[in-house]
Amino acid sequence: MPVLQPIVNIAELLVQQGITDVVVSPGSRSAPLTLAVARHPRLRVRVMADERSAGFVALGMAQQSRRAVAVICTSGSAVYNLAPAVVEAYFQQVPLLLLTADRPHEWLYQQDGQTIDQPRLFGAHVKRSYDLPADYTHADARWFIERSINEAILFSQQTPAGPVHVNVPLREPFYPAADEAFRYEPVRTIDWLRTEATLPAEIWHRLLTEWERSERTLIVVGQHPPDPALLTVLQQISDELGVPVVGEITSNLPRNDLFITQTDTLLAGLTPDVAEALRPNLLITLGNSVLTRNLKTFLRQYPARQHWHLTENPDRLTDAFQSLTTLIPVSPRLFLEKLFADLDYQRFLQGDDDDDSEGFAFRQHWQRADRQARRLVQQTVFGPDVPFTDWSATARVLEALPANSVLHLANSMPVRYANLCGVDARQQISVYANRGVSGIDGCLSTAVGAALQTDRLVTLLTGDVAFFYDRNALWSAPVPPNLRVVLLNNDSGHIFRMIDGPSRQPELETYFETPHGYTAQRTAADASLSYRACDNVDELASLLPDFFLPGDQAKLVEIKTDKLANQHQFATYKASF
Amino acid sequence: MPVLQPIVNIAELLVQQGITDVVVSPGSRSAPLTLAVARHPRLRVRVMADERSAGFVALGMAQQSRRAVAVICTSGSAVYNLAPAVVEAYFQQVPLLLLTADRPHEWLYQQDGQTIDQPRLFGAHVKRSYDLPADYTHADARWFIERSINEAILFSQQTPAGPVHVNVPLREPFYPAADEAFRYEPVRTIDWLRTEATLPAEIWHRLLTEWERSERTLIVVGQHPPDPALLTVLQQISDELGVPVVGEITSNLPRNDLFITQTDTLLAGLTPDVAEALRPNLLITLGNSVLTRNLKTFLRQYPARQHWHLTENPDRLTDAFQSLTTLIPVSPRLFLEKLFADLDYQRFLQGDDDDDSEGFAFRQHWQRADRQARRLVQQTVFGPDVPFTDWSATARVLEALPANSVLHLANSMPVRYANLCGVDARQQISVYANRGVSGIDGCLSTAVGAALQTDRLVTLLTGDVAFFYDRNALWSAPVPPNLRVVLLNNDSGHIFRMIDGPSRQPELETYFETPHGYTAQRTAADASLSYRACDNVDELASLLPDFFLPGDQAKLVEIKTDKLANQHQFATYKASF
Repeated sequence: MPVLQPIVNIAELLVQQGITDVVVSPGSRSAPLTLAVARHPRLRVRVMADERSAGFVALGMAQQSRRAVAVICTSGSAVYNLAPAVVEAYFQQVPLLLLTADRPHEWLYQQDGQTIDQPRLFGAHVKRSYDLPADYTHADARWFIERSINEAILFSQQTPAGPVHVNVPLREPFYPAADEAFRYEPVRTIDWLRTEATLPAEIWHRLLTEWERSERTLIVVGQHPPDPALLTVLQQISDELGVPVVGEITSNLPRNDLFITQTDTLLAGLTPDVAEALRPNLLITLGNSVLTRNLKTFLRQYPARQHWHLTENPDRLTDAFQSLTTLIPVSPRLFLEKLFADLDYQRFLQGDDDDDSEGFAFRQHWQRADRQARRLVQQTVFGPDVPFTDWSATARVLEALPANSVLHLANSMPVRYANLCGVDARQQISVYANRGVSGIDGCLSTAVGAALQTDRLVTLLTGDVAFFYDRNALWSAPVPPNLRVVLLNNDSGHIFRMIDGPSRQPELETYFETPHGYTAQRTAADASLSYRACDNVDELASLLPDFFLPGDQAKLVEIKTDKLANQHQFATYKASF
Repeated sequence: MPVLQPIVNIAELLVQQGITDVVVSPGSRSAPLTLAVARHPRLRVRVMADERSAGFVALGMAQQSRRAVAVICTSGSAVYNLAPAVVEAYFQQVPLLLLTADRPHEWLYQQDGQTIDQPRLFGAHVKRSYDLPADYTHADARWFIERSINEAILFSQQTPAGPVHVNVPLREPFYPAADEAFRYEPVRTIDWLRTEATLPAEIWHRLLTEWERSERTLIVVGQHPPDPALLTVLQQISDELGVPVVGEITSNLPRNDLFITQTDTLLAGLTPDVAEALRPNLLITLGNSVLTRNLKTFLRQYPARQHWHLTENPDRLTDAFQSLTTLIPVSPRLFLEKLFADLDYQRFLQGDDDDDSEGFAFRQHWQRADRQARRLVQQTVFGPDVPFTDWSATARVLEALPANSVLHLANSMPVRYANLCGVDARQQISVYANRGVSGIDGCLSTAVGAALQTDRLVTLLTGDVAFFYDRNALWSAPVPPNLRVVLLNNDSGHIFRMIDGPSRQPELETYFETPHGYTAQRTAADASLSYRACDNVDELASLLPDFFLPGDQAKLVEIKTDKLANQHQFATYKASF
């Protein structure tokens, strides 16, 4: 057996456990892992030189596939460069398998190159850390490697999914000798069966009773990947039980006649009267973080008497609105489906059809406010004499998105502008944003990862700071031709101009916005992206149809707007409340 | 007192404790820290949008000033982006004060934005971690902040210097109200006196006896910042006591008639006979990591009977050559100065002048080998019919460096090529390289930081992968006009072609070298750098004089070489042993 055979076998284990994709950053210490995955006929391997990008590319791929993507890097600071993506994946609950090469530990603190204290490097921001042995002569060491890789993959994918770190100390020689056979041995896979948590009957009936007692129930959906089955049951509950369902663009709750999506606008400048009218008795939440500050503030200031949070396999009390009364640790979708089925059956038995109950009135109240908010947004972005701004451009781009495509929203302003607009249900857009920890550091790489993993068109809406920060996303691999980058270039970190505090400081431009004067033209040319620029609405309208056509090249459109126009539009909008 | 006054006072404490420079990345959570330092008339504040670059820029500044540089960033993944620079600073022993804004801890795991588990985030890779309170009403909380900042600054600068992390949870509001006075209160500084460790007389005399008993003593200097006093005593010891002193370009040991600097070449292909002739009885080491693999291997394979390692305030047994017998925990310079003084005095008393002792013969043996090695390198890079390669270009660039300038060497091939050449003592070059953990991730940013901190010309010699990886170094701040970037662009991670293992693999180009096709022309244009390119020796020779002239703009020269020529030259060189 070649010395590194247990490492070579890791590639076979990945395949047997259903992993299809690996992102590799070049390195010599990591070469045994790289060769093992590169030579495996059933693994697709992408190479990204910048580990920070590599991590986010893997995140974007795993978001699409809903399966763990493996990431391989060499030892030393390379590993730390994965950390921004790791922490985003942890809080966004996306499975990643981090295979980091290391020197054997006896070399730590011995002035040896690229040697840092790697085991448990990601601390609390991975679901679990493994540290493989550097010597494989004892059978137990090989058993440990095989068992750990099985566990790491399966555990990363269990709900809540997340990153798992496997540190891999490796001794030289890293490369097979010229006469050395290279083959994968049969490996032992271990299956870890999936379960469904259900509530005991007495608890279930208690909840049903409480549900029926509440006449003002509100469902709020935080960030959530696209889930048609969840959408169906939410529609049924809202439509047939008269419950308002509130969501955001990052909840993948589209704009339709039923859902409340203009939350940021409708909850702005709330008077106590209106707030009381919108206040639920029973709040049910699911999904990850809520984007809209107005929604968070409303739910905290006007807490429901009862707040149920639905989440599978929690290990904490997440109390985002400071009103939690009941943690319901089951699959939100299964819970809601059973709830709807039971209530629907009851209604059938009772011949009940009380669409004019207080519940329906409550829903209508929310829906009316939503429609009003939508009109205000429409006027703000499409009204007469509206200048060409980031927000107006965003609205037009969203309306032009091809049906059934993927939308990535960068932090920090683009995701907010897009949320203010929403996307129409008929467009069937799948929406993603790095709202786990809301950094700007990997938005472009994440979109590149998505485009590598899907055949659908992937459009990233990004500001200039997030774009240039992460431009190494475009450097290494061929940029996938189904990527579209819509770059709102206002030459600075514009969010600081939009929020109250910094915009009043004399340091605004120098220390917060940091204008750089860059356009993306040269970056696009370096990366062989088709490039167009525009600075008015007619140009934008005329180039979008072509822009969204499929082609053999990724495309970038740079939308240049004026910071004062942006600021003025937003201030006028805010003053209207 | 404004609520955030204790945070504002941190800026005053920095100044009182001698900190002059701060690198800030924009953020809202960090705004109180940013405003506090930006408004202080005695702090120079630089803004870098990419935190990864910000960390390395601060490292480059602190290398020059030998004082802690403060780094401020916002909460969330921003903090993790500092980590690559933090771990490099830790192992390179450069003082940094990391002030990371945080949400108050009660918001952790509550689906709130940019909230991660920040306290102790850098684990073992900072000297110490502090976590400030979020509430300041109790006097003890204010006492804790003041005392901790004092301690953090002083402790970061104590030998061995290194990064210290101060996590700063901050409650809203972050910005002073319009009518709020902004001022710095008087702060209490605490002084922590410096000591010098000395050896008790009986130990000292035992060492002196052992020194005198050894007739084959070798001094090896690892990575070390420029230190004229150290150089002086090393010259005296070598010259007058006949001890060979071995160093590398990163030791800041220049090429002169005395020092042994061609180690990589002279120890290549060593026969056992020659190795025995070069083997010391007593090895004395100082400084950080050794660059040259041949030197490490030689010292491990032919261990001295005694190995003394000189290092101030160690907390571990660092045994890089697996031969350590005695850790001498005192300042290497003071030890060597006292050693030389005592021995010199003894020689004076004894009228001793035995230049023909075995010690001098041993030194001459090393020096002869060094001169031979130097001739071989000269032939390889300057001989007739030598192609235009990275190595040859490096040699010409090093010879053309302006006197008294600063040289930064990027990982991984440039630092090796430069070490093979060395720099002449008459040029008085100060040499830096990120050999703490030897990453490519921040070499450009570190050089930018150096150029911001010194008026001397700073030349970075870099390969293309390290250059593009870290190009955000050029994005935010105006690039300092005293920066010169010499870019060896062979369109890939060339080191993999040079080392034995990967160059034999069919995966060499795709998974290791990763050619990208980029030239730096557009990057230079975006960053307003003067740009020249060349692909032959005459062009290079003709443009270097202008390139090194002072000017009002940073300059970049892109040297394009052929990978096969590089590989061939290196292979021929290696085959000559």
